[in-house]
Amino acid sequence: MNKATILLEALPYIKKFYGKIFVIKIGGNALKNSEIKKTIMKDIALLKYTGINPVVVHGGGSEISELMTKIGIKPEFRNGHRVTDKNVMEIVEMVLAGKINKDIAMNLNLLGVKSIGLCGKDSNLLYSEKETKFGDIGLVGKIKKVNVELICNLLENGYTPVIAPIGIDDKGTTYNINADTAAAEISVALKAEKLVLMTDVDGVLKDGKLISTLALKEAHDLIKMEVVKGGMVPKLYCAITAVENGVKAVHIINSAIEHSLLIEIFSDEGIGTIIKGGIESV
Amino acid sequence: MNKATILLEALPYIKKFYGKIFVIKIGGNALKNSEIKKTIMKDIALLKYTGINPVVVHGGGSEISELMTKIGIKPEFRNGHRVTDKNVMEIVEMVLAGKINKDIAMNLNLLGVKSIGLCGKDSNLLYSEKETKFGDIGLVGKIKKVNVELICNLLENGYTPVIAPIGIDDKGTTYNINADTAAAEISVALKAEKLVLMTDVDGVLKDGKLISTLALKEAHDLIKMEVVKGGMVPKLYCAITAVENGVKAVHIINSAIEHSLLIEIFSDEGIGTIIKGGIESV
Amino acid sequence: MNKATILLEALPYIKKFYGKIFVIKIGGNALKNSEIKKTIMKDIALLKYTGINPVVVHGGGSEISELMTKIGIKPEFRNGHRVTDKNVMEIVEMVLAGKINKDIAMNLNLLGVKSIGLCGKDSNLLYSEKETKFGDIGLVGKIKKVNVELICNLLENGYTPVIAPIGIDDKGTTYNINADTAAAEISVALKAEKLVLMTDVDGVLKDGKLISTLALKEAHDLIKMEVVKGGMVPKLYCAITAVENGVKAVHIINSAIEHSLLIEIFSDEGIGTIIKGGIESV
Amino acid sequence: MNKATILLEALPYIKKFYGKIFVIKIGGNALKNSEIKKTIMKDIALLKYTGINPVVVHGGGSEISELMTKIGIKPEFRNGHRVTDKNVMEIVEMVLAGKINKDIAMNLNLLGVKSIGLCGKDSNLLYSEKETKFGDIGLVGKIKKVNVELICNLLENGYTPVIAPIGIDDKGTTYNINADTAAAEISVALKAEKLVLMTDVDGVLKDGKLISTLALKEAHDLIKMEVVKGGMVPKLYCAITAVENGVKAVHIINSAIEHSLLIEIFSDEGIGTIIKGGIESV
Amino acid sequence: MNKATILLEALPYIKKFYGKIFVIKIGGNALKNSEIKKTIMKDIALLKYTGINPVVVHGGGSEISELMTKIGIKPEFRNGHRVTDKNVMEIVEMVLAGKINKDIAMNLNLLGVKSIGLCGKDSNLLYSEKETKFGDIGLVGKIKKVNVELICNLLENGYTPVIAPIGIDDKGTTYNINADTAAAEISVALKAEKLVLMTDVDGVLKDGKLISTLALKEAHDLIKMEVVKGGMVPKLYCAITAVENGVKAVHIINSAIEHSLLIEIFSDEGIGTIIKGGIESV
Amino acid sequence: MNKATILLEALPYIKKFYGKIFVIKIGGNALKNSEIKKTIMKDIALLKYTGINPVVVHGGGSEISELMTKIGIKPEFRNGHRVTDKNVMEIVEMVLAGKINKDIAMNLNLLGVKSIGLCGKDSNLLYSEKETKFGDIGLVGKIKKVNVELICNLLENGYTPVIAPIGIDDKGTTYNINADTAAAEISVALKAEKLVLMTDVDGVLKDGKLISTLALKEAHDLIKMEVVKGGMVPKLYCAITAVENGVKAVHIINSAIEHSLLIEIFSDEGIGTIIKGGIESV
Repeated sequence: MNKATILLEALPYIKKFYGKIFVIKIGGNALKNSEIKKTIMKDIALLKYTGINPVVVHGGGSEISELMTKIGIKPEFRNGHRVTDKNVMEIVEMVLAGKINKDIAMNLNLLGVKSIGLCGKDSNLLYSEKETKFGDIGLVGKIKKVNVELICNLLENGYTPVIAPIGIDDKGTTYNINADTAAAEISVALKAEKLVLMTDVDGVLKDGKLISTLALKEAHDLIKMEVVKGGMVPKLYCAITAVENGVKAVHIINSAIEHSLLIEIFSDEGIGTIIKGGIESV
Repeated sequence: MNKATILLEALPYIKKFYGKIFVIKIGGNALKNSEIKKTIMKDIALLKYTGINPVVVHGGGSEISELMTKIGIKPEFRNGHRVTDKNVMEIVEMVLAGKINKDIAMNLNLLGVKSIGLCGKDSNLLYSEKETKFGDIGLVGKIKKVNVELICNLLENGYTPVIAPIGIDDKGTTYNINADTAAAEISVALKAEKLVLMTDVDGVLKDGKLISTLALKEAHDLIKMEVVKGGMVPKLYCAITAVENGVKAVHIINSAIEHSLLIEIFSDEGIGTIIKGGIESV
Repeated sequence: MNKATILLEALPYIKKFYGKIFVIKIGGNALKNSEIKKTIMKDIALLKYTGINPVVVHGGGSEISELMTKIGIKPEFRNGHRVTDKNVMEIVEMVLAGKINKDIAMNLNLLGVKSIGLCGKDSNLLYSEKETKFGDIGLVGKIKKVNVELICNLLENGYTPVIAPIGIDDKGTTYNINADTAAAEISVALKAEKLVLMTDVDGVLKDGKLISTLALKEAHDLIKMEVVKGGMVPKLYCAITAVENGVKAVHIINSAIEHSLLIEIFSDEGIGTIIKGGIESV
Repeated sequence: MNKATILLEALPYIKKFYGKIFVIKIGGNALKNSEIKKTIMKDIALLKYTGINPVVVHGGGSEISELMTKIGIKPEFRNGHRVTDKNVMEIVEMVLAGKINKDIAMNLNLLGVKSIGLCGKDSNLLYSEKETKFGDIGLVGKIKKVNVELICNLLENGYTPVIAPIGIDDKGTTYNINADTAAAEISVALKAEKLVLMTDVDGVLKDGKLISTLALKEAHDLIKMEVVKGGMVPKLYCAITAVENGVKAVHIINSAIEHSLLIEIFSDEGIGTIIKGGIESV
Repeated sequence: MNKATILLEALPYIKKFYGKIFVIKIGGNALKNSEIKKTIMKDIALLKYTGINPVVVHGGGSEISELMTKIGIKPEFRNGHRVTDKNVMEIVEMVLAGKINKDIAMNLNLLGVKSIGLCGKDSNLLYSEKETKFGDIGLVGKIKKVNVELICNLLENGYTPVIAPIGIDDKGTTYNINADTAAAEISVALKAEKLVLMTDVDGVLKDGKLISTLALKEAHDLIKMEVVKGGMVPKLYCAITAVENGVKAVHIINSAIEHSLLIEIFSDEGIGTIIKGGIESV
Repeated sequence: MNKATILLEALPYIKKFYGKIFVIKIGGNALKNSEIKKTIMKDIALLKYTGINPVVVHGGGSEISELMTKIGIKPEFRNGHRVTDKNVMEIVEMVLAGKINKDIAMNLNLLGVKSIGLCGKDSNLLYSEKETKFGDIGLVGKIKKVNVELICNLLENGYTPVIAPIGIDDKGTTYNINADTAAAEISVALKAEKLVLMTDVDGVLKDGKLISTLALKEAHDLIKMEVVKGGMVPKLYCAITAVENGVKAVHIINSAIEHSLLIEIFSDEGIGTIIKGGIESV
């Protein structure tokens, strides 16, 4: 009976999100831990079966570095961005689009969620150009246009797309795209209800304490005041961009907490940080 | 986190029943208790939101007798069937199709489940004829044909039909139909996955103990051996008819147990009696 | 041959109204006379078969009073509106939605017109609130919003909706709505071609003589000058509201005249009063 | 009121024939008389507007002869069939497909019936071969296959096809086809409800008296016994072929009687001869 | 291999024009030469099979004059327009809609292109009125409205329409329409990608030399400066009208050059004159 | 003009293959040569634009060995099959699904062909099991079922699928599948018109001379007689299996010959070997 009560507690959330699109970005580290990966897959499956349309975007940084090391190429970073020459790019693609991406798709399929692994090369999904604001770090790109037709088509036919953040331009140049940024751009292009960034920390912290809810203005202030630092800064910028361009809410949660995804979606209090525009609840 | 685990325990059931039709018969007594009615409505709403297509059939015997008494007509029964002359039939219709039926539809609508109250007069839904096997008890009928086109049409458009068991023939004669029988016939006509009979007892009992699972042959034996008696006999016959005509499983559960519907559907052990044909698991 | 000529005389009307929606309000008295009821049903069937989409709204005042009397509750009116407490409301519902409504649906079905009996509780059809302008007369309501999705859906699939004027609000309160007003609101919400009010009088009279055609301004004047009095005043207000909100024409006709509906629709001269906005012909 | 009664008398026929296909063959003579032509067009329009799908096939013999004469070619017949060399065939096509066919289409369009003029050359409609059983009379053909796809497509989109009986083979040879035969073949290919042959006589006569109803066997006998002679023999063969291949009924009526088409369709007694297979009523 | 290279050279054109509508006007003279007609038909078939939607419009002046002469009516022209009384109009229709039009449709069908022969009388395709600017020359008309619904419907279902330039008004008056003008009006109404005018000359000439490309302004100038004279003037006006009303480009080519249509469409240099609005390339 | 003639010579082939599915297997070697790859991509684009539905399957053996070598794993083969442990399988996946597959998809997209890169993990596309007939060589698999739903869905929406031959089972085990076999199984599952195996040799040779056409029986004989040896034997078996299971024809052609694909499809004589069942021509 307790079980039934808990199921029913989920009903208002299920009703609220029925048919909506959630873009869920999973960090590479989460996917390396097979237990965490397994529970995230199940959480996504439950979202799908309760009527939500998940679109998965994933990273994979550490696995890329591992393969590079095996081949004898030393990973190099500038300002947190991987220096990506043509050889590195090939490795990025093989690891992201060939290994991690298809592995996620397969695991979702095994749970009964019809899933397809894509990257920006499929049907010109992520039309991109060279990112120049960090100096010349090679084939690192930024997205100019997300061709949503393919994703919409797949969602309408009941498929769950899994997307590796690899971009192309019209000359066939391939780009390494930051996964958070890709997820944010995709959520905007799809007019998603939510963007969920699954990371390694509990959310946005202030003086070591988790902030549950952030209005847009507060988010801007936290960056300006340098309360937020390091890797959280670009993540928060992604969140701000998404919300300012129409995504209803962005969630930053810790993928290491078991079922953080479900807890965040199916409760009012949540477990991480939610960034949203105005007054509208959840 | 506990909550998330329980939600995920429901996942295999949600997957299994996604898009399937469940015919759910609610007895009149359950609907008189506003607390029980409320939880049943919520349970049905959850089924709908997790992808099941519920079709509700309801009774209403005691409320019919109440209105008859108010008007000064004495309710009369033979072999458990209401003697139904033309005046009584009019009262049956007003109570079932005008009061109880529309009340269920409204309560589902208030929970966000688009619902429509129907009876056999709508689009010739329950084409019937006089039931003669109990002697002449007036306008008591049996169903000859369920016109499923309307129901299928409504289900495809996302509506949940609520059906009052009133039949008609091609001369416009109106019949009082037993709600269990109507639910069974409707479940067969719709090739439903499940028929759930919500009653006042815990299920089929043997020596005072609940039988959890009944194969078809056992169900026949229980009747022949007269282990099962009284009002449970026709219910068990309904279950047998449904299973023998293609319904995957019939559940007999106690509507007085809170959330019995959810518990029965979303657990392996269940809470009542399940009657099924062969080897296939729940 | 004479017959063929008459059929052909109907052709211009059939062409003109092909695929259009007509909201037809039938008064409760007309439905009590089985001969009149039968001819009205046939007239509606012919409209349907010549390509018009009829939507039927009905009253039922005298039958409500009859059942109240049987139960021992004295009908009470203020300013022509029934004082409606919770007990009375239950009787209103049973008589309107359980008896009269389903009887009309059945009779249309018997004539081959696929028909469904609805009230405001079905799919939140008539979203309402308490009507306060007549003082506190209990659960008498006025319509705030007609949820046309369901009706449009049914019309597209070939069904003819029959609607009992019962409203609800989002707390599940049920309201008794005036049938003429309900019909007018529904005709506006459906952008109907015509609203036909079938009453007990021949139309709008002036000095005892029938007025065939009324422009909007004249209708307003007749009320202001108190040429029109009594029960015709609210009817004329309904007509004015409908026309001012986009319904092409409103007809007030006498249901006691055999086939008044067909005569009104299929001839230029008509048999009752037509209220319309501007220059456009019938 | 009388008018309303007559309209309602048509209701059972309208219901019965709703959505059914009627192939109507109009003889060339009828079309030369502008009064008769006009009433036939109106009759067809009424059929269309009451839900029937008319498919028109037409002749045009005398107009062909007229143009031949103007050009200086003498019309020649053998066994009632026009001797058709290449020059004559060109004239046949111009008169049938260019003049009469398009004129019918235009007249139906002017009555609000969306209509399209076709011949066997359009989308390979009437795939034909040389008819050899009357000796060598040139380009007289018989139909091997009616390509119904185009007609079905047009009917589904609400268009009324008008067909000139001109056939082709896969080498582009053009054939003159008897209009009655073409109509019969088309009615069979479309699984039509009715084939109506509009001619210059009242129907099948026996001893100068009209036979109202003919069973298949009787029709065969009338030919064998030579009760029926001359031009009626091939017409009766067409009727027999149609009925034996699935058309429900064939009507032979006099186009000179005003509104004979409507009278025949909308009354039980009819005005000409009906040929049908078995017991089923009109 | 050479063959493969040539096929691949066509690829950019095929891609560019995939799914686009081309209105192709074929002059009457081209159709009289069976060799030329055959290659034009093949060219159109290739366009269709590479994904273009051709819509064919045709003339037929000399064949009309021939039939008139045979019948003994002397063809008469004023300012290049045929004086068209009622008798002449009948001949125009028979030749255009009965002979030439259906012959083109048949020839396309024989090549596997599903084709239908139409004129302005079909579904009110070319709604017209009397053309008065050349003085009273009888039933010569100009188009007021092209009813594109039918053509769009046919194109969506894979049919290729062939259109004879005959117009009607709402009284059933039939008009003789100039084929170039009709083609231009149809191309505008269909928002066609291209209008191709197949004529007897190589294109627009200046000092005896072919002009390959003409901007709108240049086209106006050529007329004003009287560089272009005679029959080319109205053709150039047609082209200007089409381009000014949204058609991307108009081509004037010589039908006597074998495969001029394919060469014009599938090469950058082309073979005739192209008239277009602005900077956009072919 | 010569160009036009050549285009028209392609017309009968375009007509014949319009809307048909061609499964095209490209060997890994062909894809390593950027010139050859480019012409194959263009050839496929032309097929697509002339109405054929290509489905691409590819190999990639030498690139797999290259990456293995870089990482320091020595490639090992038994009976021509790669010994595939878990580490090797990961490399296979990365090279096939991450690099080669997405590169083909991108190149087709750049030519305007909407294309998607898939492997057997996407929507359970290639349901497989361990292949045991060559001894234990690890994760080498054979296909048990091709889940065509996804491919059909993509084809209907205009996408061209590119498939890497990687299989899965319901436990998530991943298998290395022979690309020829995978292409054959996919062609059978899709009821393809043609399977084209692009290899490094000119076709099936006998005494050093190319055999243009092989009937099924002859193909069996060539293997039995050991006329055909080495790598051609399994290819011929694939061809035989495909034809025996409903594929109309299998072509074995040399990808090193420029445009061999187009020449083979668009000419009667072809350039390689065609294997087919019976009498039916190419």
